[in-house]
Amino acid sequence: MYRSHRNGELRIADINKEVKLCGWVQKSRDLGGMTFLDLRDRYGITQLVFNIESNKELCEQARKLGREFVIQISGTVRERSSKNKNIPTGEIEIEVNSLEVLNSSKTPPFTIEDNTDGGDELRMKYRYLDLRRNPVKENLVLRHKIGLATRNYMNNMEFLEIETPFLIKSTPEGARDFVVPSRMNSGEFYALPQSPQTFKQLLMVSGYDRYFQIVKCFRDEDLRADRQPEFTQIDCEMAFVEQEDILQTFEGLIKNLFSEVKGIKLSEVERMTYAEAMRDYGSDKPDTRFGMKFNYITDVAKGKDFKIFDEAESIIAINVEGGNSLTRKQIDKITDYVKTPQVGAKGLIYSRINEDGSFKSSVDKFFNQEELAKWAEACDSKPGDLIFVLSGDEASTQSQMNDLRLHLGNLFELRDPDTFNPLWVLDFPLLEWDEDSNRFHAMHHPFTSPKKEDFHLLESDPGKVRANAYDLVINGVEIGGGSIRIHDRDIQSRMFDLLGFTKEEAEAQFGFLMSAFEYGAPPHGGIAFGFDRICSIFGGSESIRDYIAFPKNNSGRDVMIDAPAKVDNQQLDELSLKLNLKA
Amino acid sequence: MYRSHRNGELRIADINKEVKLCGWVQKSRDLGGMTFLDLRDRYGITQLVFNIESNKELCEQARKLGREFVIQISGTVRERSSKNKNIPTGEIEIEVNSLEVLNSSKTPPFTIEDNTDGGDELRMKYRYLDLRRNPVKENLVLRHKIGLATRNYMNNMEFLEIETPFLIKSTPEGARDFVVPSRMNSGEFYALPQSPQTFKQLLMVSGYDRYFQIVKCFRDEDLRADRQPEFTQIDCEMAFVEQEDILQTFEGLIKNLFSEVKGIKLSEVERMTYAEAMRDYGSDKPDTRFGMKFNYITDVAKGKDFKIFDEAESIIAINVEGGNSLTRKQIDKITDYVKTPQVGAKGLIYSRINEDGSFKSSVDKFFNQEELAKWAEACDSKPGDLIFVLSGDEASTQSQMNDLRLHLGNLFELRDPDTFNPLWVLDFPLLEWDEDSNRFHAMHHPFTSPKKEDFHLLESDPGKVRANAYDLVINGVEIGGGSIRIHDRDIQSRMFDLLGFTKEEAEAQFGFLMSAFEYGAPPHGGIAFGFDRICSIFGGSESIRDYIAFPKNNSGRDVMIDAPAKVDNQQLDELSLKLNLKA
Repeated sequence: MYRSHRNGELRIADINKEVKLCGWVQKSRDLGGMTFLDLRDRYGITQLVFNIESNKELCEQARKLGREFVIQISGTVRERSSKNKNIPTGEIEIEVNSLEVLNSSKTPPFTIEDNTDGGDELRMKYRYLDLRRNPVKENLVLRHKIGLATRNYMNNMEFLEIETPFLIKSTPEGARDFVVPSRMNSGEFYALPQSPQTFKQLLMVSGYDRYFQIVKCFRDEDLRADRQPEFTQIDCEMAFVEQEDILQTFEGLIKNLFSEVKGIKLSEVERMTYAEAMRDYGSDKPDTRFGMKFNYITDVAKGKDFKIFDEAESIIAINVEGGNSLTRKQIDKITDYVKTPQVGAKGLIYSRINEDGSFKSSVDKFFNQEELAKWAEACDSKPGDLIFVLSGDEASTQSQMNDLRLHLGNLFELRDPDTFNPLWVLDFPLLEWDEDSNRFHAMHHPFTSPKKEDFHLLESDPGKVRANAYDLVINGVEIGGGSIRIHDRDIQSRMFDLLGFTKEEAEAQFGFLMSAFEYGAPPHGGIAFGFDRICSIFGGSESIRDYIAFPKNNSGRDVMIDAPAKVDNQQLDELSLKLNLKA
Repeated sequence: MYRSHRNGELRIADINKEVKLCGWVQKSRDLGGMTFLDLRDRYGITQLVFNIESNKELCEQARKLGREFVIQISGTVRERSSKNKNIPTGEIEIEVNSLEVLNSSKTPPFTIEDNTDGGDELRMKYRYLDLRRNPVKENLVLRHKIGLATRNYMNNMEFLEIETPFLIKSTPEGARDFVVPSRMNSGEFYALPQSPQTFKQLLMVSGYDRYFQIVKCFRDEDLRADRQPEFTQIDCEMAFVEQEDILQTFEGLIKNLFSEVKGIKLSEVERMTYAEAMRDYGSDKPDTRFGMKFNYITDVAKGKDFKIFDEAESIIAINVEGGNSLTRKQIDKITDYVKTPQVGAKGLIYSRINEDGSFKSSVDKFFNQEELAKWAEACDSKPGDLIFVLSGDEASTQSQMNDLRLHLGNLFELRDPDTFNPLWVLDFPLLEWDEDSNRFHAMHHPFTSPKKEDFHLLESDPGKVRANAYDLVINGVEIGGGSIRIHDRDIQSRMFDLLGFTKEEAEAQFGFLMSAFEYGAPPHGGIAFGFDRICSIFGGSESIRDYIAFPKNNSGRDVMIDAPAKVDNQQLDELSLKLNLKA
């Protein structure tokens, strides 16, 4: 036995016990005749004391220990004279009577503290040291808890966790696949799954009724910030369900997780259609922790000889409560923000509502008090508020106004990190037009069922067809999405037509699924949650990378192990491959 | 709501309830004016009744339903006149008043019954139909239960489940890796992990203390029977532990699983060294459900002018209790068995112990009664028993005798499927000599720690060095194995030398691990269990394939989705690859 206790365990009730502890040297202090040393492990910190009077040799040995040395000590638990209320073991210390160095340590390249001095790149190279820091450890503990709570909830709801294969088949639909050359089948390749979509649908055809899996998925995308080539999904599917059954079940999951893991009782999950979300917030994942909904003042603001408005498709205004307190300089800064390429607005118009009810706008030349009063009426503004207005084609203006709204939410600290507002966004469009390829793409995926009442539009106006598709959004972050699936071979086949698949392509790629639909496929639907994303929302961080033990950087590299790497020619030869590098 | 109840749910107490059910048509029978139909879902079977007198149209509709049609019905729960005690819903039936066909079905290519008429290949092609069969479903339910029970046990023991990456680096040690070409890093490759070995060791260096993960692993091997290119491990690692801590912890896991999942209280886990296992059973994974231990009669059987024995390194005998009842014909058949190429013995010698205590052997020409009595003494034989003897070089004879012993165990039905005998095999050799490459290979893996007391043999006689390595065996099947690891950079480096790595190779492949050892690596060790294998042991099957939802065949193909498959040239081009097929 290396140890009798862990470092977070001993209390005042343990005084006079003989104990054996192991851990890392967090720090040490020499105070005259005494050396104090903080011993750290996963469970906490225990203070060790070495007294030069009672044991000179041991004390001198202790003074030689460097940071991050691994040691084992024996000693007696004593009450501390000066107690530390900040740690659970703060009332005791160990009077050490023997010490063994289990392993030494070079000086770490950065400090193993909550606020380290190590930069991002250095910490990634030495990720095994970064993982020692408390905040990183707490993230991984949180991830473990969310995973286990998810599994137990799903099990209680009679879902079965069923593993689907990782070596599957490449399909050109959606994002790019990672492929895996097959040695035993020369010239052929597996693909790593972007999601277990078709397999979970097959499990429904097989009668498994309620399936889930916490599973790694893979996408070979050019990595935008906070995307990882491998990521984890909570993947779920149910048979004999309508949309409402799914919404209820997974509201239950999210509420259960918040209550089990964070001790938070969530309120009812709000619902909103995609059309409403776009109209009121200019986003399909609105942050509903604060207001500032959009007001369309196109009718009242057009025709006043203000060219910018007159040429606009839409004129959108939002009311900033108490916004009249903004200085001219602050408004200029906000204007600079909306003019950044990332937002892309040409300018920003405002109207102050003074305390006396009069208006002062940036377009007083074109709009008189009466006309500005109409804006205020449309925005439900009060004296002391301020109205911001953007205009242009509707889609761009909505998108710009969404950015502005979130920016103001941050500025006025309306996005309370301790509030969690879950929201279902419903009735997503089935298809979206892709300018590049000049054809429709599936907005969710090709297996999503159109709404029955929109079926008649499939031929005449496919862009208008709504899907039985839904996203779960928390605080402006999409944490999951799913749909009721097509379970009819003919409809699935029509869907592939609509998406521009030839019969041969559809058969080659998804023939097995369409065949399966001929043998008694039940109505079914499901959802997938971004597990990394859920962890980051729960942990209060913006970045999923903080919740992944060994993440990759933006070029898809693991800089710690230095992967990917070259392989030798024999290996390529066995795979019947040759490099074909561009000069 | 598609249904008010599931098909395994309704009981006599539900009589007269109006219910709505969904499911698949399992079978139907027309009996005069009545049509009976068995409706199936994951949860069970419910009998539906259609009466031609009360509703002719509905009854005629019901008669048109084929096997595996998916239907939804409403009706009233009635008490059955002839009850079926074999199913939980056997006391009731549903008098149907409405019926909707949710989906039709072509006639399945094989029957969806416990004993199907479908061959292996057909069932694999239509795996989604095979998965509907009860035995397959029960296997996957069992797998789900074992997974969840494992996770809850490990969590209770304060292990954290931490996900390690799938896109890692290829290393030539061990089996062949599957590689994944990187598009963003032209000419470079990731590898899929054969196990998370180095990552779990890094987590120990990071202080995580107790890690586990149920995780997919990958090996590009030529598939022997019952191997899969992707398989699942319960992967575990602990810090500040000695071998004994690990044995205790994971005995606990296995006992807990047997008790939770099968309601079986396991006895103490027996222990045996590798040397003892090889000596007494000729196998490092002995089936200890029955005796027939090996007896070495080399000394007493040599020097009697029987050339075969005189030239042998070892002569091994086993006693078959009551074996004298075997007829000459039966013994001939057993002799044929040991002479199959798979076993490889040249012949089989026996000696009967007659009821009167006299002996009748196949080598009476060379051995008199007195000499045969010495064999019987060595084997502790009684009248009515029979002794089988094999001889030759020791390793081959042990291996052949192991085959014979298991064969006899089957023949005499000594391998009781309801008995579970767990066994630790300890003190495995550190290294094994590989004739092909003319160098030592790590028997477990290169990170396994030699036993301290054998350290001095590392230079002088490496083949004799024992490792702190252990396997958990149940009923002759290895379900897990592990070791105490090296945590010292210098010893790890010496180990790589011993295995024939150059300094450069060791650095390129495992530099990150050896660096990590310089920053305070704690003593640590672990174990990995074959999850598929545990499921098959629990389920009482020989084949892991039966416990995998979508397994691959012996050529590594998924015949259902037809993977692996060709990818288009654009995809290869993006990956900077070209096919290099042999003519």
